Amino acid sequence: MQYHQDGFRPGNPDDHPAAEGRSVGAPLPDEVDVLIVGSGPAGLTLAAYLSGFPDIVTRVVERREGPLEKGQADGISCRSMEMFEAFGFADTVMRQGYWVNETVFWRPDPADPSHIARNGRVQDVEDGLSEMPHMILNQARVHDLYLDVMRRSPSRLVPDYGLTMTGLSVGEGEHPVEVTLERADGSPGTVRAKYVVGCDGARSSVRQAIGRKLVGEAANHAWGVMDVLAVTDFPDVRFKALIQSAGEGNILIIPREGGYLIRLYIEIDKLKEGERVAARGIDVSDLIAAAGRILKPYSFDVRHVVWWSVYEIGQRLTDKFDDVTEAGQVPRVFIAGDACHTHSPKAGQGMNVSMGDAFNLGWKLVSVLGGRMGPEVLHSYSEERRAVAQDLIDFDREWARIMSERPANASASGDPEMQRHFIEHGRYTAGMSVTYAPSVLIAGAEGQALAPGFDVGTRFHSAPVVRLADAKRMELGHVLRADARWRLFAFAPEGEAGLRRIVDLCRALEAPGGLIRRYPGPEVDSVFDLRAVFPADPHTMSPSALPGLLLPEKGRFGLVDYEKVFCALPEPEADIYALRGVSRMEGALVVVRPDQYVAGVMALEDVARLEGFFDKVMIGGT
Amino acid sequence: MQYHQDGFRPGNPDDHPAAEGRSVGAPLPDEVDVLIVGSGPAGLTLAAYLSGFPDIVTRVVERREGPLEKGQADGISCRSMEMFEAFGFADTVMRQGYWVNETVFWRPDPADPSHIARNGRVQDVEDGLSEMPHMILNQARVHDLYLDVMRRSPSRLVPDYGLTMTGLSVGEGEHPVEVTLERADGSPGTVRAKYVVGCDGARSSVRQAIGRKLVGEAANHAWGVMDVLAVTDFPDVRFKALIQSAGEGNILIIPREGGYLIRLYIEIDKLKEGERVAARGIDVSDLIAAAGRILKPYSFDVRHVVWWSVYEIGQRLTDKFDDVTEAGQVPRVFIAGDACHTHSPKAGQGMNVSMGDAFNLGWKLVSVLGGRMGPEVLHSYSEERRAVAQDLIDFDREWARIMSERPANASASGDPEMQRHFIEHGRYTAGMSVTYAPSVLIAGAEGQALAPGFDVGTRFHSAPVVRLADAKRMELGHVLRADARWRLFAFAPEGEAGLRRIVDLCRALEAPGGLIRRYPGPEVDSVFDLRAVFPADPHTMSPSALPGLLLPEKGRFGLVDYEKVFCALPEPEADIYALRGVSRMEGALVVVRPDQYVAGVMALEDVARLEGFFDKVMIGGT
Ligand SMILES: Cc1cc2nc3c(=O)[nH]c(=O)nc-3n(C[C@H](O)[C@H](O)[C@H](O)COP(=O)(O)OP(=O)(O)OC[C@H]3O[C@@H](n4cnc5c(N)ncnc54)[C@H](O)[C@@H]3O)c2cc1C
Ligand SMILES: Cc1cc2nc3c(=O)[nH]c(=O)nc-3n(C[C@H](O)[C@H](O)[C@H](O)COP(=O)(O)OP(=O)(O)OC[C@H]3O[C@@H](n4cnc5c(N)ncnc54)[C@H](O)[C@@H]3O)c2cc1C
Repeated sequence: MQYHQDGFRPGNPDDHPAAEGRSVGAPLPDEVDVLIVGSGPAGLTLAAYLSGFPDIVTRVVERREGPLEKGQADGISCRSMEMFEAFGFADTVMRQGYWVNETVFWRPDPADPSHIARNGRVQDVEDGLSEMPHMILNQARVHDLYLDVMRRSPSRLVPDYGLTMTGLSVGEGEHPVEVTLERADGSPGTVRAKYVVGCDGARSSVRQAIGRKLVGEAANHAWGVMDVLAVTDFPDVRFKALIQSAGEGNILIIPREGGYLIRLYIEIDKLKEGERVAARGIDVSDLIAAAGRILKPYSFDVRHVVWWSVYEIGQRLTDKFDDVTEAGQVPRVFIAGDACHTHSPKAGQGMNVSMGDAFNLGWKLVSVLGGRMGPEVLHSYSEERRAVAQDLIDFDREWARIMSERPANASASGDPEMQRHFIEHGRYTAGMSVTYAPSVLIAGAEGQALAPGFDVGTRFHSAPVVRLADAKRMELGHVLRADARWRLFAFAPEGEAGLRRIVDLCRALEAPGGLIRRYPGPEVDSVFDLRAVFPADPHTMSPSALPGLLLPEKGRFGLVDYEKVFCALPEPEADIYALRGVSRMEGALVVVRPDQYVAGVMALEDVARLEGFFDKVMIGGT
Repeated sequence: MQYHQDGFRPGNPDDHPAAEGRSVGAPLPDEVDVLIVGSGPAGLTLAAYLSGFPDIVTRVVERREGPLEKGQADGISCRSMEMFEAFGFADTVMRQGYWVNETVFWRPDPADPSHIARNGRVQDVEDGLSEMPHMILNQARVHDLYLDVMRRSPSRLVPDYGLTMTGLSVGEGEHPVEVTLERADGSPGTVRAKYVVGCDGARSSVRQAIGRKLVGEAANHAWGVMDVLAVTDFPDVRFKALIQSAGEGNILIIPREGGYLIRLYIEIDKLKEGERVAARGIDVSDLIAAAGRILKPYSFDVRHVVWWSVYEIGQRLTDKFDDVTEAGQVPRVFIAGDACHTHSPKAGQGMNVSMGDAFNLGWKLVSVLGGRMGPEVLHSYSEERRAVAQDLIDFDREWARIMSERPANASASGDPEMQRHFIEHGRYTAGMSVTYAPSVLIAGAEGQALAPGFDVGTRFHSAPVVRLADAKRMELGHVLRADARWRLFAFAPEGEAGLRRIVDLCRALEAPGGLIRRYPGPEVDSVFDLRAVFPADPHTMSPSALPGLLLPEKGRFGLVDYEKVFCALPEPEADIYALRGVSRMEGALVVVRPDQYVAGVMALEDVARLEGFFDKVMIGGT
């Protein structure tokens, strides 16, 4: 991480100096730029993102009296971990959380179907899918980590607890959205905002206020879920385990952080024939008893129940994630997370997709509020994320069906359907299959052949490199911070010609009418952060041969930023050109959005295409 | 990390619940168990260690009015990083610090000796030396990380700032050491302690009070040191660089955390002939000018000076690190860190060796105060650490000589001496060559052949393994927490016989007269933490076949601890048996002290030797 640029600052570099007028506990102003309703994973991802921009006045209202302490979701996909890295806390999650390394499958023992037996074991995340692991950590801890980022940010943002949003209307003026609030003591309040984002969960009041509806089956699946401390001789209790019994139903075991806690999901429908209607009368003792029956012949002795719930949910989806009803209207109110989509908890997607919604919206709000993009770009939020949610619903429906199957329904090949499905959909559950369709923010497939491994519309797939200036081996993707900047990765072709072509690219970008002067920021890399990668031994290269744009002088003292240039690693299995199919003859320019998605792959010379792409979305081109 | 054993606790698992009666800001009591004087790296390492044991009342007095903010040391050796891992903050240092990957060497350009030219480049840490990198991070940040551990510990320990120790005497009674203090306002105070540890730097008052002296040359080398923000076209400014000019002296560049800051060490003696006496009149502008002359033909434009100092120091050493003057006397007062040894800053050892002193003493104090070992064991502190300090002084004298050489003195082979020396001594500067001599705490070389890679007397050299219960790939050495426990690593031989021999070992350890019942603790693994490693595919093993001692039931709920058993990795280059030479036929029992040093290697059957070893140092054997 980079710091001390404008002088040495003692203390933790994660603690940013407070911006003027910002302090923890500052009262909620009458007018804000962005009001976030709800501090679940969606609300906090957005709040953490916006808190890095103190020019934007962001506040979060939350009905609860304080932070969440336990329960709810716990699965963190590789994709979410990549995002956490951009916020700076992936390392803490890796240290404190449970690593999902393998998943095991249990079915009725063919020799004695009243007993379960292990019939499969798979590596949970396929090799090379992400540099990040699949993790399990309580949603409340994830909240804490975001709250930490917010509190340490220049905005000193802390949610306003005990405030319920009760109504909302969109009018005119600079702060057109009026939100009414109710304090815990029943007293009312009002806030006016430029934008309101409803991250207020499945029963979203914001969604209702803008007249949107969750459509789909209301509650076709009921699951019991419990977090317990238990003693068992089931040998796989520290593995994620999908267990199908012959007649007692199915169970999903999720080992939890800290080495002792476990979560069990138990399908209630399958407890007994016709028990569905009585589901509401179910108690944790019923869940424990069911787990005991399903896990036979293994003992299951629950010593302590931490949290439990009966989680009844259907696959439901909102038709649009903003308040736009007419052509020409620009959105002022958005919804994100469970407010837009609900689904079963079993594929571990709830928290992840909700955070993904917010990560998609964050940089767009920053760009529009900062005057860098026009408000039309905000339409893309609903377009892009609704498609993701639709996929999620479809996936979940299929997955829920499979999870509820009687084990007898094995596929013809004898390989059980659940296991096959699990393997096939590993990329999906890891969060890697999200692909944004071509739009003003996603260029078409032209140029893709130059770097097929940086698939346009998907998240930038990191690979290792070595940094030229200090020989540090690192993941290239880790330069993608949550800072609303576009990244331009220039992959040089081989040889001396390669350097020349990078020099030419820099010249074009820096030219008087070029992209960087056309859309200027406080620093030369504030809007477009250019990085170069060379397919060369770093010992044969010298910074002095590099163009100035790759050694930019920054900050109060005009200090050189040495972290722009990288080389591919010499080992063939770790060479980013080989791993991502980048042409060594042609090189490539990979354009990455602030939310880490590949916007386009272009030829190094095709600056006109690059400029054309940005001219369509940026404001103030000269 | 393991937590939630006795029930779910919301919030950060790094925050331990406060022990009864402990709170931040509690007044300094009249009597304490351990009084630490000084909150530098030595004092804070010891304080952080002891803060994990709230039954021990530890306090730290510090003359300064608050925490250090800048300056002083910045090199963190691989060995210190291994120790930081045991405290839980190595990941933060890796994220925030500078990684020393390569070191470069510059000498007068043979073509034009008035200019420097690069003449060498070496990988800084040899492959396989440690799983940890060599890091650079300001001493003040290291202090902060320790202060964090202390504040979050059950002891809620915070140094008492603005308190200077002014006198000390050892008398009788349960708290025999009386320490007089002076507050910042001049008012006096007194504390009585069972033990006092002087971590009060090179001018140590504690050292003086116990009549010890630093012996050696007082100030034979003077170095200018400055932390600056500068712009230069010297191409290796983000590498650690040793630079010898033809006539202008030598410089050492240390790139610093955050990507912009750099430190320069400039030998003042060599600035000009006979300038030595005037050294005290030297100003930062002289240092900057000297740097400019040495770096020619490169520009060097300092834009901001963060900190600078003229650091005059000799190689000096105290003859004994405690207050023992007569046979039969047990130590009550210790000194650690710069209070015992001073040397030049150039090999980056100051902070590291000081922390190493404290890490050696911490667990011994815990064991004695906890009644587990007799006070005689405390003699070993001075014995073990004085030998380390003597090596340091010898090394530093040699290194300082080489660093001050005129570049003309290249060795006969043409390979410059500095570079050769640097490579040869990489293990030393990484902190890996410390070897404690045989004593009651270090068994002899018997058994060493069973695992030559776990060299008796040296630190446990970690290697990767996979944890049986959850398939997590991890470093075996990372189970060595800073918790005053002994570790017994049982490496099983191959095959079924291997498991049988581990079962036999467990039986012997658990037997009525066996080690574990002989020296009991609150949990079965509180004193001896047994871990087993198998040279087997984990998929062929089942926890159910393991002896109970490897699946111990712990805590309030009797929950099973699943983190005791590991398997070697299948890849030959990552197989711990191959890497450390562990016999696959015989296996081995590797005994590791609480400070991570290998106390002995024994045959799995040689329980008598194991018991004999502990019977000599432990109290209460039955
Ligand atoms: C009880 C429960 C149990 C769950 N169990 C699981 C599980 O076992 N596994 C799993 O994967 N997922 C589970 N989920 C789902 C998972 O938690 C969600 O998918 C995820 O939290 C979605 O995040 P979100 O930010 O969209 O909404 P939420 O996390 O629901 O956050 C919404 C927030 O908005 C606040 N809020 C609501 N209305 C208002 C208002 N009018 N004004 C102010 N604040 C308001 C709420 O208090 C809440 O803090 C559970 C959810 C709930 C509610
Ligand atoms: C000014 C200075 C510059 C240095 N520069 C470098 C460098 O550039 N590179 C390098 O490698 N090393 C440098 N060092 C050395 C390095 O900092 C030490 O090797 C390291 O800090 C040793 O740690 P320590 O804990 O033993 O002692 P120190 O870090 O010296 O800590 C001693 C502490 O004790 C306190 N103290 C002293 N006397 C009393 C008393 N009577 N009562 C209460 N408190 C007391 C002091 O205030 C201080 O906080 C420098 C040291 C100093 C003092």
